[in-house]
Amino acid sequence: MVKLYRGMRDYLPREMIPRERILEKIRKIFRRWGYVPIETPAIEMLETLLGKYGDDADKLIYKLDHPDGLGLRYDLTVPLARVIAMYNQQLPKPFRRYQIQPVWRAERAQKQKGRFREFVQCDVDIIGTQSPIADAEILAISIEILSDLGLQNFKILLNHRQILRGLVHISGFSADEEFSVLRSIDKWDKIGGDGVREELEKKGYERKTIEKIFEFISLENTNWNLLADLSKIDDERVQVGIENIRKIIEYLSSLGFGQDIVQFSPRMARGLDYYTGAIFETVLPELPNMGSLTGGGRYDDLIGLFSGKGKIPACGTTIGLDRIISAMEELKMLPESHTYTKVLVAQFSEKLSSVALSFSQKLRAAGVQTELFPEPKKLAKQFAYANKWNIPYVILIGEDEVEQELCVVKDMKTGQQRTISQNQAIQILTQTLDTNER
Amino acid sequence: MVKLYRGMRDYLPREMIPRERILEKIRKIFRRWGYVPIETPAIEMLETLLGKYGDDADKLIYKLDHPDGLGLRYDLTVPLARVIAMYNQQLPKPFRRYQIQPVWRAERAQKQKGRFREFVQCDVDIIGTQSPIADAEILAISIEILSDLGLQNFKILLNHRQILRGLVHISGFSADEEFSVLRSIDKWDKIGGDGVREELEKKGYERKTIEKIFEFISLENTNWNLLADLSKIDDERVQVGIENIRKIIEYLSSLGFGQDIVQFSPRMARGLDYYTGAIFETVLPELPNMGSLTGGGRYDDLIGLFSGKGKIPACGTTIGLDRIISAMEELKMLPESHTYTKVLVAQFSEKLSSVALSFSQKLRAAGVQTELFPEPKKLAKQFAYANKWNIPYVILIGEDEVEQELCVVKDMKTGQQRTISQNQAIQILTQTLDTNER
Repeated sequence: MVKLYRGMRDYLPREMIPRERILEKIRKIFRRWGYVPIETPAIEMLETLLGKYGDDADKLIYKLDHPDGLGLRYDLTVPLARVIAMYNQQLPKPFRRYQIQPVWRAERAQKQKGRFREFVQCDVDIIGTQSPIADAEILAISIEILSDLGLQNFKILLNHRQILRGLVHISGFSADEEFSVLRSIDKWDKIGGDGVREELEKKGYERKTIEKIFEFISLENTNWNLLADLSKIDDERVQVGIENIRKIIEYLSSLGFGQDIVQFSPRMARGLDYYTGAIFETVLPELPNMGSLTGGGRYDDLIGLFSGKGKIPACGTTIGLDRIISAMEELKMLPESHTYTKVLVAQFSEKLSSVALSFSQKLRAAGVQTELFPEPKKLAKQFAYANKWNIPYVILIGEDEVEQELCVVKDMKTGQQRTISQNQAIQILTQTLDTNER
Repeated sequence: MVKLYRGMRDYLPREMIPRERILEKIRKIFRRWGYVPIETPAIEMLETLLGKYGDDADKLIYKLDHPDGLGLRYDLTVPLARVIAMYNQQLPKPFRRYQIQPVWRAERAQKQKGRFREFVQCDVDIIGTQSPIADAEILAISIEILSDLGLQNFKILLNHRQILRGLVHISGFSADEEFSVLRSIDKWDKIGGDGVREELEKKGYERKTIEKIFEFISLENTNWNLLADLSKIDDERVQVGIENIRKIIEYLSSLGFGQDIVQFSPRMARGLDYYTGAIFETVLPELPNMGSLTGGGRYDDLIGLFSGKGKIPACGTTIGLDRIISAMEELKMLPESHTYTKVLVAQFSEKLSSVALSFSQKLRAAGVQTELFPEPKKLAKQFAYANKWNIPYVILIGEDEVEQELCVVKDMKTGQQRTISQNQAIQILTQTLDTNER
């Protein structure tokens, strides 16, 4: 009878507690790199959203039934560009911002694991600089976050829109075919090389032109060899792109991140139209069907579209929270967390309820996460409740304990039960807290 | 050219940093009371949303332009009820949950300060118990949060739907007029007693009946006197309500919260249809036009509407984050925070960029929030940047410092500048961190 709209999810405590812990880690790293938060509304004017992502994406924007022309945000980059255009003077450059909010996409079905119609993006972007140090910094943050969460063996695929456009051009495609070709190449991961070839043929391109671009995008080699091979191509955009990629890898190494993590990939294209420079995404070779865990790039023209005052360069990435959690789940890396509660104060009797209430409050004042069972039900029921929620301790103050300010503490893991002073109980439980809980 | 939909807001870092700090405090208190988080999607089936809040509210639900009949959530209570109905067995009772997410309401205009079309609600609810201890606990949490944020002199207005319904009945209204009368009474704060009287007259009720209900809802006195006065009324619902209110006040006092905070108010009605028992809201007498900062009550029938399996009692409150922030702004209680960054590492020259990069990373490894200026611009520009964002320190490693592993540290507040060892600088900056940042 009751139902949820397909492609949407509820997060129960078991899913939410690890989510909150992961978000706290991500936020801490964003802040450590000097990023500051912004938030924008879910509802944007349709004129803000449309025409920025490409035709395929425009179809996936949820529209409201409203005369003003409204839609739900599709990503956090276009809203950021709007914010920069509107409040440019209030945001000294370089402006480093993070933004953690859900986005909505009217995808047809759940094609990939971890792909939903509503999902949370955690974006970091640096606005107002063309320095490749910015690109390197964005990559470093992605690496730090994935490492901090315990993920291993992930690879950053790195490419450059100028290189891609140069290659598409010298293969014989015309300038207005560029985006369409890039969008087909972008599907390589999902449909494979043959699938890309087929799609390009269906789009009506000549076999010779297709084979030419495939010569480039099929290349596989070490970073320096690939870059060296492509650097022989006589095209200015390819040259500029290669020089930029080299700098980014070099700066990343000054930040302490070796080349083993970064992999230059001439066929990684990214789906959205607005990228202009380096593009990147993180993949887990262990989970090839998962898609990218993070993804982003440089988009030097997007903000200018809104401000109308010329270029404001920008670069950033999305940390795909839901993808990352799906990956960690699959890899059995998510700890089982049912609750934050450390202790349940049981109720012995109606008569002693005020004792239970005031003792529970003493525990909280000491920082201990404490639940009070709201009714003096049978003790077996109250213990069973603690067990179901994995609450580690139950405390009981009965007739025998109340006068001497004692209490019974039951360790729910061992079943061990002992009677100690109420103050001692508070002291012991306080010691179970993490530093940041105190 | 670029614009934001009316009634929507962007939060820039200056607004977001205090928001994040306040949310961290709220979350900490929720957890200390043993509450666990859930999240639900923004988009719900219209059939889930409609008919739960009352006719006036139903008109304010944003609908999507979509054949499946979809809308944006209007509050967090109805989604919670849906969750309980769908996953009842997975959530042992009493189930204490918190939920912090935005909601959307197509309000006509900004009538009240702090009233917007998208705003964040922080809800705490306890499901599965009829004990008035639950109601008292919800009130205690509201008080703790407001106190923890530094708000003073706030009052909790407390009333009971059974009392109200009893009073409406004995005044001579019919049962199916009840909700309409309550919704008019709910407007007392905004339009005053005369406005309520006028509205009831317009709705066509008899003057005599209106005067009768006004006798009750105009009453003002201390809690115990008011309760004593009303207890003389020979109506079962009034009696049940009064007994319940007494218990709640008593339990609240066992939790350590005195009667000076709670004020029984026979004309506080709450707008939504689903309440069945105690209702409450928090107001700041200093800011009478602000509306309520928190608001909630008991709703024992709502979940049953979804589950179809009989009653599951529930009680909870919304902590109105945006209202609270508006209030704190008005009262000049919000600290000016521009950034989390503790230090800007300046760039001396292109040649020394790798030194700056690797030193910035050493600071981060020590937990210090560190920005690197991405280009070797004139130092005056880099200092100006630090000033604009209120970054307290700038560190510079120039030609003179690099070989001896020294650095120049400039305190941006005093302007003082000194040359010390790089390790010493890291040590000093680490000491500026809060415990939970380390």
